[in-house]
Amino acid sequence: MHELVRRLYPLCRSITGDGVRRTLEIVSEYLPLDTYEVPTGTEVFDWTVPREWNISDAYIASEGRRVVDFQASNLHVVGYSTPVAATMSLAELRGHLHTLPEQPSLIPYRTSYYAENWGFCLTQETLDGMPDGEYEVRIDSTLDDGHLTYAEHVVPGQVTDEVIVSCHTCHPSLANDNLAGIAVAVALARSLENPFYTYRFLFMPGTIGAITWLARNADRIEKVKHGLVLACAGDAGHLTYKKSRRGDAEIDRVLAYVLREREHEIVEFSPYGYDERQFCSPGFNLGVGSLSRTPYARYPEYHTSGDNPDFVLPEKLADTLSACQQAFSVLDRDRRYVNLSPYGEPQLGKRGLYDALGGRSDAKQAQLAMLWVLNLSDGEHSLLDIAERSGLPFDTIADAARALHDAALLKE
Amino acid sequence: MHELVRRLYPLCRSITGDGVRRTLEIVSEYLPLDTYEVPTGTEVFDWTVPREWNISDAYIASEGRRVVDFQASNLHVVGYSTPVAATMSLAELRGHLHTLPEQPSLIPYRTSYYAENWGFCLTQETLDGMPDGEYEVRIDSTLDDGHLTYAEHVVPGQVTDEVIVSCHTCHPSLANDNLAGIAVAVALARSLENPFYTYRFLFMPGTIGAITWLARNADRIEKVKHGLVLACAGDAGHLTYKKSRRGDAEIDRVLAYVLREREHEIVEFSPYGYDERQFCSPGFNLGVGSLSRTPYARYPEYHTSGDNPDFVLPEKLADTLSACQQAFSVLDRDRRYVNLSPYGEPQLGKRGLYDALGGRSDAKQAQLAMLWVLNLSDGEHSLLDIAERSGLPFDTIADAARALHDAALLKE
Amino acid sequence: MHELVRRLYPLCRSITGDGVRRTLEIVSEYLPLDTYEVPTGTEVFDWTVPREWNISDAYIASEGRRVVDFQASNLHVVGYSTPVAATMSLAELRGHLHTLPEQPSLIPYRTSYYAENWGFCLTQETLDGMPDGEYEVRIDSTLDDGHLTYAEHVVPGQVTDEVIVSCHTCHPSLANDNLAGIAVAVALARSLENPFYTYRFLFMPGTIGAITWLARNADRIEKVKHGLVLACAGDAGHLTYKKSRRGDAEIDRVLAYVLREREHEIVEFSPYGYDERQFCSPGFNLGVGSLSRTPYARYPEYHTSGDNPDFVLPEKLADTLSACQQAFSVLDRDRRYVNLSPYGEPQLGKRGLYDALGGRSDAKQAQLAMLWVLNLSDGEHSLLDIAERSGLPFDTIADAARALHDAALLKE
Repeated sequence: MHELVRRLYPLCRSITGDGVRRTLEIVSEYLPLDTYEVPTGTEVFDWTVPREWNISDAYIASEGRRVVDFQASNLHVVGYSTPVAATMSLAELRGHLHTLPEQPSLIPYRTSYYAENWGFCLTQETLDGMPDGEYEVRIDSTLDDGHLTYAEHVVPGQVTDEVIVSCHTCHPSLANDNLAGIAVAVALARSLENPFYTYRFLFMPGTIGAITWLARNADRIEKVKHGLVLACAGDAGHLTYKKSRRGDAEIDRVLAYVLREREHEIVEFSPYGYDERQFCSPGFNLGVGSLSRTPYARYPEYHTSGDNPDFVLPEKLADTLSACQQAFSVLDRDRRYVNLSPYGEPQLGKRGLYDALGGRSDAKQAQLAMLWVLNLSDGEHSLLDIAERSGLPFDTIADAARALHDAALLKE
Repeated sequence: MHELVRRLYPLCRSITGDGVRRTLEIVSEYLPLDTYEVPTGTEVFDWTVPREWNISDAYIASEGRRVVDFQASNLHVVGYSTPVAATMSLAELRGHLHTLPEQPSLIPYRTSYYAENWGFCLTQETLDGMPDGEYEVRIDSTLDDGHLTYAEHVVPGQVTDEVIVSCHTCHPSLANDNLAGIAVAVALARSLENPFYTYRFLFMPGTIGAITWLARNADRIEKVKHGLVLACAGDAGHLTYKKSRRGDAEIDRVLAYVLREREHEIVEFSPYGYDERQFCSPGFNLGVGSLSRTPYARYPEYHTSGDNPDFVLPEKLADTLSACQQAFSVLDRDRRYVNLSPYGEPQLGKRGLYDALGGRSDAKQAQLAMLWVLNLSDGEHSLLDIAERSGLPFDTIADAARALHDAALLKE
Repeated sequence: MHELVRRLYPLCRSITGDGVRRTLEIVSEYLPLDTYEVPTGTEVFDWTVPREWNISDAYIASEGRRVVDFQASNLHVVGYSTPVAATMSLAELRGHLHTLPEQPSLIPYRTSYYAENWGFCLTQETLDGMPDGEYEVRIDSTLDDGHLTYAEHVVPGQVTDEVIVSCHTCHPSLANDNLAGIAVAVALARSLENPFYTYRFLFMPGTIGAITWLARNADRIEKVKHGLVLACAGDAGHLTYKKSRRGDAEIDRVLAYVLREREHEIVEFSPYGYDERQFCSPGFNLGVGSLSRTPYARYPEYHTSGDNPDFVLPEKLADTLSACQQAFSVLDRDRRYVNLSPYGEPQLGKRGLYDALGGRSDAKQAQLAMLWVLNLSDGEHSLLDIAERSGLPFDTIADAARALHDAALLKE
């Protein structure tokens, strides 16, 4: 996963353009992708797919020397900057310069997607070293009709009900946000084997990408039963799960169940963050939560040049992946059963499911699990409910349910 | 407000009679009132309007000297005492005397509205100083067919749904209970400007007055959406809100929201106290709570001559008024909206409601408020719900809702 | 009660057989019983009534001397052991011997009802003292078609709705588990006088007995409104109430209410324990909880020869009985009323139910109770609800309700 982060890091991504396309090409070396191109001007709910932005070079130069150079870091240019070729005084230029005075050695990340503008981001230290005088300012960018590009990878399941896993692809040289999410999504997709649900992995630009996908997949939404947005998935912090808008969706309960074995934090839904904002808008209100390590804007390197590949730790990527795998393993096996012998306990002994010797007080966990599953399988309680209420591990409960199902004592 | 308390203090009020009329006349110097007279004998639900009681003088005298004198304090006579003109021994008189042995320098407050009787209230110290012997006992009172008197002041709103504010007018020389409530109600009514709801202020005797009003306004009850009973509104203690019987009425949530910025206490409903007992009887079960400072019977001066105008502090009257104003300001603006663009977020930027420059992590509170309002405006959540869930100030949420409503993104 | 425990202790009970019959005969000296005999082979839900087991003698002897002797303790023989008459080496015998290595001086209790087998239980100390060599092994038992025996005692109530009280009768020489339960049930049944509900006391073997009763009384189940399983009712520990599967059944609330005056513990339902397992199976889901002192398997003497009559304390039996009596006293009087004068408060004074003298702050508890009952009697709240919400004693609330009912202010 960390290798993928490093390979994708230098590309200049935005919400459209060749940086995104090249990113998806590299991802597709690891995971087959279906890539979609949506033309500029397409109406998607309240929004319109914008013009496509591409950039080849940009700089601020003084006496022929590049003081700020897009080739050194693509963060130097405000995303969606219009082309510029001009000479101007520092005073005139200042209105187009963005720095972080509190973090003087870091370059900020800024965009201006929907208001035509141009600008440069640089360190405060660089700005402080720029003498008054004339500067050559150049941005070789294009903003033309084109396409918005996103991709999907589908792991077919036993049922057509879907779990979506989404990560954004629109950030340029920022590693934790969100190349780490892309890397975990790729590894997660590769690790799923014959799942129950159909899993759909979505690689798309933030906000406009999710809105575009939702608008183009309106007839599929009712199939989406659960989902997870991956973001900031590789920093040194512990895992943080942000609940869906519903707050008690099955995905919320599964993540809470899986994370309780780890240091973690669970936060309530808020309509700010990543694409859970769209999936959880009131018209959809999907059971989609978001898994991060340190959430956006809560680490100083957020949206700065400090969010580089060294900020992402391989073992933390692995931990995020593992939590996702555990969560989907529970989600995939969670069912509601109905006890077919609900009047008193059925006689487990005659089916070989119960110890013949009575009187011992150390009833085995597997037997307890069967009694719990039988008692609560009234169509109201899921296996996760039963695991939580009994205090027994989900795996034990799921195994008990399988044994009882095989013995024709349960039906779904 | 404190001036009004002082002016009203000397009057001998009861559940009927000229003391109430004179009280309402003085109040009407500050606030126009509609005064109603309900004849003795009128059936009001399970009750009957009683005879009207008036009193001009009363005393216990020994050797021509008044030992207990109604002119010194109207608390000296048990409310609704029948006329007496007799001479009797102290032993005979004792059965008609009420003192507070634990608070020997205070006169208690006693009434006997519905059982014909007479009596005097005096300090234990006075009683202890009364030698055996003959006493002249005189009560110049009348108990005849007449009227029960109450008054209303209505502040018309944009809608005919009503908020009622009620205070009792039946206590004689007791200041906190309830001249303070009358004073706050008057100031509150004067301060309301073009409210959303119609506000109806009720000045009426306790219990029988509220029951009479309810019986005579049966067809208006369904318009009463919220209400507040004001009592004990000026002592040095902190504010105490007693919830409506429902416990989760909007008025309950509004008061809890407003009071959390102050030292305060919230107590559950109980069917004892002031006229919330009637408004919250099971046949009505209105969303009416009660706001006090120190609740009835929890301060030693309660129902004694210690509850005098000095016991009421001007700054505490002002604080109670301010809390009421804040509460009604929230209540008046609280609405449920429906997001008209519920599929994904609407594009706020194109409507000038969102920062053009992306990437910054310090999204402004006003923008967050708009996202919260959009996300939760599904017809289920009120603005107060949204304020509580988002942690943002109600004012910010209400402003965001107005901006979104103006931009045609919300409807009520 | 303790005398009954001592009398029943020596009998060799099992899920069928003459030990149960003799037990019920002795119980019937204290409490009239209707005894039922259900033939071997009867289908009861998923189970079949097993063959009847009886035993007259059993031992392991070496050189003519009994090393393990059923006459000394009936725990020595595994319940439902098939007949044996053989000589075998200790090595061969070991597979049929059960000890408690951690509690070397105690005999364990073991059964093998549904898998044909035989075995002996003995102390680890005895086993350690048995030299290698040949042993004479004999079990004089019969396992033939016969009957399962259970009994009922019914205390007729004013209504045919029933409360069931159940205890198991299948354990041999074990005192707390469950002769203590039998003893408390007998005393409880004897103490009920003209109850509101019909109380049905059930004395039957665990699991198969309860399942048999349920199968044979299918048409009566809908009459069973509440129930209590008594088990481990006499040890030194404090009372423990295990909730019904519903968790908020009236019996659960009543027990919680009654026990809060005592040191106690309340535990959630689990599908392991005594016959609440059957009553609370999902097909029935009855409001049946279980009252114990120290719950099964939580005391070291559980299912060992340490659970003898000395382990049961007379004062603890009395305490369990008292808690049951209090609980049923509350349950029996708990009702939902409707206030017939719900618009405002009715005038209690004219009915002699309220102090004539007003103004005092120490309103009597009885008057408060009437106000609470009137306020909450909307058909939704039971007297227990009102007692809990008001904080007033249930007795006071029930008395107030009776007075109001007598005054025609309430109907059921």
